[in-house]
Amino acid sequence: MSRLRFLLAAVPFALATTCTPAVQRPRAGAAASAPLPSWNDGAAKAAIERFVANVTTLGGPGYVPAAERIAVFDDDGTLWAEQPVTFQLQFAVDRVRALAPRHPEWRKQEPFDRLLADSTKSFLASGGPAVAAAVAAHAGTTTDSFAVVVRDWLRTARDAKTGRPYSDLVYIPMLELLDYLRASGFKTYIISGDGVEFVRSLADSVCGIPPEQVIGSQGKLRFESRDGKPALVKLPEVQLLDDGPGKPAAIQALIGRRPLAAFGNSDGDRELLEWTWAGTGARLALLVHHTDAAREWAYDRDSPIGRLDKALDEASRAGWTVVDMKQDWKQVFPVR
Amino acid sequence: MSRLRFLLAAVPFALATTCTPAVQRPRAGAAASAPLPSWNDGAAKAAIERFVANVTTLGGPGYVPAAERIAVFDDDGTLWAEQPVTFQLQFAVDRVRALAPRHPEWRKQEPFDRLLADSTKSFLASGGPAVAAAVAAHAGTTTDSFAVVVRDWLRTARDAKTGRPYSDLVYIPMLELLDYLRASGFKTYIISGDGVEFVRSLADSVCGIPPEQVIGSQGKLRFESRDGKPALVKLPEVQLLDDGPGKPAAIQALIGRRPLAAFGNSDGDRELLEWTWAGTGARLALLVHHTDAAREWAYDRDSPIGRLDKALDEASRAGWTVVDMKQDWKQVFPVR
Repeated sequence: MSRLRFLLAAVPFALATTCTPAVQRPRAGAAASAPLPSWNDGAAKAAIERFVANVTTLGGPGYVPAAERIAVFDDDGTLWAEQPVTFQLQFAVDRVRALAPRHPEWRKQEPFDRLLADSTKSFLASGGPAVAAAVAAHAGTTTDSFAVVVRDWLRTARDAKTGRPYSDLVYIPMLELLDYLRASGFKTYIISGDGVEFVRSLADSVCGIPPEQVIGSQGKLRFESRDGKPALVKLPEVQLLDDGPGKPAAIQALIGRRPLAAFGNSDGDRELLEWTWAGTGARLALLVHHTDAAREWAYDRDSPIGRLDKALDEASRAGWTVVDMKQDWKQVFPVR
Repeated sequence: MSRLRFLLAAVPFALATTCTPAVQRPRAGAAASAPLPSWNDGAAKAAIERFVANVTTLGGPGYVPAAERIAVFDDDGTLWAEQPVTFQLQFAVDRVRALAPRHPEWRKQEPFDRLLADSTKSFLASGGPAVAAAVAAHAGTTTDSFAVVVRDWLRTARDAKTGRPYSDLVYIPMLELLDYLRASGFKTYIISGDGVEFVRSLADSVCGIPPEQVIGSQGKLRFESRDGKPALVKLPEVQLLDDGPGKPAAIQALIGRRPLAAFGNSDGDRELLEWTWAGTGARLALLVHHTDAAREWAYDRDSPIGRLDKALDEASRAGWTVVDMKQDWKQVFPVR
């Protein structure tokens, strides 16, 4: 992921549940007899199945009790698409536009002025200031109100290229992988650089991951009384950035167990995979490599979003599993 | 809890599991037919049973699906004793003494000098400096090494008054309450002002609460390479203070659901109970009032540790449940 996305995590996002219809899966119900139906036979699929067999075979050398089976997933570019900009970044752009009428001062204020002059690209290119602007735009909102905003956006927003809701840009093979791990006794977590409350909205409805198993960046919250009732109000300050080396630290602080399996797609997931891989016993460290320009996007070492460079080299040295999306996946997105 | 304990949460504590034997419970196995056997019949027990029946009765007006049944417990003074000092504070004192031989400079350095001159009381009275000292004492230690230190301390340390291990100072009625809620489909969490990794050590072995359901204060961690392996190293800085208004904020950030039930014993739990109580539908907000000088300690409005003053007034105004330890509990501690 880009530095921009990393920083944007500062936007304090509220809990929300989407109302998107359930994603259409190919060969639903086949998971029990043949897991991972959208995966072609190959090294990646074999590595996943070998790992699962290893930790779940009672009496085997790699057996791990179910309570200790933790699997952690990055989100953008690992569970769902992140090009040309991440969902959260697009949400921030849309929100600044929506709130602009209430803030006439933004027309003369960097970097809002760029965005409001219809130069989204220039706004995003401003990096830190764009982030600060997006954060500032929601300061003072209660978490309950913000939840409604996120839910409404997810229900109505459409990806510019495909015209589909963002919940349709999820990777079917990764949903199958989540199902397969859960059916094998794993507790599945999302470990995201995005704001935790934004991610929860998709995690629960699309990926079957409950709010308490989503770890993300956190904005500071202030507890106060509003209309005689306690409220949590978003502040324009960062509490925790959950990216890069922050991912293992957040796992230690919030889960307290080292994961057995970690899934990512960029240099921002490198330390997450290193930490997981360095544990004793059977481990799985897997990178999704975006190689499919026809069905999705092809990018790695030079991409401003989802850069995969050092982690790709390390995968090769360490023996991590690398998924070649073009070769390994029969299908990428759900069919409607 | 005292301000001191609050601040001491800065000590970054590592994950550990204790080796203490299982706590001896009265009338084990009776929970299914008659929950809460160590509770006398009275308003507190009735309020708990009424609340549980309310949220678990399918088709009833208060029914809540199991996935949303979250119950949160403060630890010191709510699940286990906190007098004359909290376990974590005693641990800090013991550790500074144990590490002193490696730090000859401490003999002339405030506030270590007070402690090493055998004036624990004076050391603790120094407040902030005592905390800073305790934090500094463990900076640079890896979380893995620290886990061993905590585990060893819990195995060997004894409460000065009773001579019993700290795991014996847990409240039997509260363990029954945890069991009862879990049997009723609740997910039970600890929400502690103490360092999260210290609390986990007791939470798992004594209270049946897994590491990922312990929320506590967090010290900052640095991800680095040690002997060619990734390590998380404790820094002498605070990441998150989970006390007072920080408790609801931490729940929102880490669980993402408002609890149905909250249990505390001091003014540090006031906002936690307010936040829980303000939700829609059936709620339970309960304070443990330490009224039993014979079997435990009697303290409330004037205690430096576990002060219960404003929250006690609010309980009376709002209609929260207050447990009178002397009247409501047949038994306090486990019998060996």
